[in-house]
Amino acid sequence: MSLTYRATGVDPSRATDALAQVRARIAKTRRPEVLGDVGAFGGLFASPGTDMVLVATTDGVGTKLDVARALDRHEVVGTDLVHHCVNDAMAMGAEPLFFLDYFSTSRIDPAIFARVVGAMADACAAHRCALLGGETAEMPGTYGAGAYDLAGFLVGAVARDRILDPRSVLIGDVCIGLPSTGLHTNGYTLARAIVARSAAAQGKDMLAALTAPRGDLDGASLGDALLHTHSSYLAPFRALRDAAAIRSIAHLTGGGWEGNLPRALPDGLGAVVDRSAWQAPAVFRVLSDLGRVQDEEQWDTWNMGIGLVVIVPEADADAALRAVPDAVVVGRVERARADERRIRLA
Amino acid sequence: MSLTYRATGVDPSRATDALAQVRARIAKTRRPEVLGDVGAFGGLFASPGTDMVLVATTDGVGTKLDVARALDRHEVVGTDLVHHCVNDAMAMGAEPLFFLDYFSTSRIDPAIFARVVGAMADACAAHRCALLGGETAEMPGTYGAGAYDLAGFLVGAVARDRILDPRSVLIGDVCIGLPSTGLHTNGYTLARAIVARSAAAQGKDMLAALTAPRGDLDGASLGDALLHTHSSYLAPFRALRDAAAIRSIAHLTGGGWEGNLPRALPDGLGAVVDRSAWQAPAVFRVLSDLGRVQDEEQWDTWNMGIGLVVIVPEADADAALRAVPDAVVVGRVERARADERRIRLA
Repeated sequence: MSLTYRATGVDPSRATDALAQVRARIAKTRRPEVLGDVGAFGGLFASPGTDMVLVATTDGVGTKLDVARALDRHEVVGTDLVHHCVNDAMAMGAEPLFFLDYFSTSRIDPAIFARVVGAMADACAAHRCALLGGETAEMPGTYGAGAYDLAGFLVGAVARDRILDPRSVLIGDVCIGLPSTGLHTNGYTLARAIVARSAAAQGKDMLAALTAPRGDLDGASLGDALLHTHSSYLAPFRALRDAAAIRSIAHLTGGGWEGNLPRALPDGLGAVVDRSAWQAPAVFRVLSDLGRVQDEEQWDTWNMGIGLVVIVPEADADAALRAVPDAVVVGRVERARADERRIRLA
Repeated sequence: MSLTYRATGVDPSRATDALAQVRARIAKTRRPEVLGDVGAFGGLFASPGTDMVLVATTDGVGTKLDVARALDRHEVVGTDLVHHCVNDAMAMGAEPLFFLDYFSTSRIDPAIFARVVGAMADACAAHRCALLGGETAEMPGTYGAGAYDLAGFLVGAVARDRILDPRSVLIGDVCIGLPSTGLHTNGYTLARAIVARSAAAQGKDMLAALTAPRGDLDGASLGDALLHTHSSYLAPFRALRDAAAIRSIAHLTGGGWEGNLPRALPDGLGAVVDRSAWQAPAVFRVLSDLGRVQDEEQWDTWNMGIGLVVIVPEADADAALRAVPDAVVVGRVERARADERRIRLA
């Protein structure tokens, strides 16, 4: 019998059909710098001038994908991917320019693809970021039925003299925190393990545990709480930038506080964090209670209710707080103690 | 019992350890435009001037990953990923500037990771392309044991007045082909299905079928033939660019000839291809015989021995051929026939 590509599980027309469903939404992300047409081998974007520096970042959304899939909430991970990348580029001081995505699965479901990539396109449009290209891979046997993986790539730009540089941070500088909506896109493997164990202990299945309304979440379900969108901090960043001299920024993602806040500090400096300064979303307490997760483990895995930390001189702290109503002082830069963790929880 | 992130299968130190093994090779990809340090939230690269256009592309390597894994040849897919991206950007006329990678797996094996990403770094260095960043995702349960997926993202640049534009192509222009080493990174699901069926028919397992020396491959195995590196065409591209007025370029990847050559042509034009003009690597005949793959199916799936088609004016064809010794005239641009395929095989 003659073998065909389609018979082996790969059908390039599925990707084409899927893309056709979101073409209009992708077109809305077009900026004046975009040249050429969709379908070329590479996306074209007019270069900023030599006074600018390009900032490039790549991210995924991890196993939040599994929760989104279990609850048929595919849009959220598309939005998350763009927001995650926007925040990472912003942590260097950059505004987004363009984004590309990689969508990989065993067999493309055009409806799911359109929901994920459509959400990416909408998030790009909301940030005036061009969705400049993407790759859709059909890899039979690589992923379980219905599973897919996503990667995002974003290029932004910052004026050369406005690059945020952790080396500019001084002892006594103030750490301004911006609230997160929940776990954002990190620590989902731990969260899912907690939910799975708790479900098993009650003789329930995972889906039931994810969808049951809970009193300790004000009637929301764990699934609801786990599928809040990863916040984009571009708007508050712009407001802070106008109001204060931002020294550096930490985007609190994989690795939590100890894994990220030191990335915004020079060698030899750490920070003391006042845990009473904000109220974390209830999902953190619910998960840590259900999983009996130690304090340090929580803070090394999750953002604990603060998605972004912006470091400003003490003299600018009040102006920063006035510029962004939900910002809060979460800590202060101090000398790091030799052989100790750089983030001290107080 | 208290749950920890590590206990659920995610250990961020594995990614850190894996990266440490290839840091020196990544450092060799540094170019003068690269600013800042590894470990920042985004990679910094000085912008080219406004006379330049950025060209961005993203690619994967598909199920060639499975063959590489079966034969413990992980380096090849790292190199492939860079070359695939370099060629795509080059198809717009661009030279590479920087590259980022996404590596996703259920559990990071630092030795495998170092082989894959080390090969990427070496390929970047060979192209003077900065390896500017990457994301390593550990997603328990998403991939089978030992499986991983890769995505690459490359930004290049081309002078605004040297962007290759398919609309410049005229009837009578000459299609110059550059030889491929084999399937490059496309059509592996079909190839694997053919090998699997052939193995089953002989009562052998897949690995035995991949590793058996074959007379029709001059003593090489199918695995050898399937794991040749995806060619980078940057050097011949530069030689052609100096010798001839390149109108446009098609990188023959997923979708084969009909799926890619029309992307380098304006609406209404097609090309006639002289199949006798070159000798394809033997692997194409072996696979199509074993799988009884119809002609059109082969040409719509595989590159058939030509990895890149460069379109030049007829007057420049001789100069182009002299500039690149293994280049060959593979066809000619003609008017497309209404309602027919745009690539006519002669």
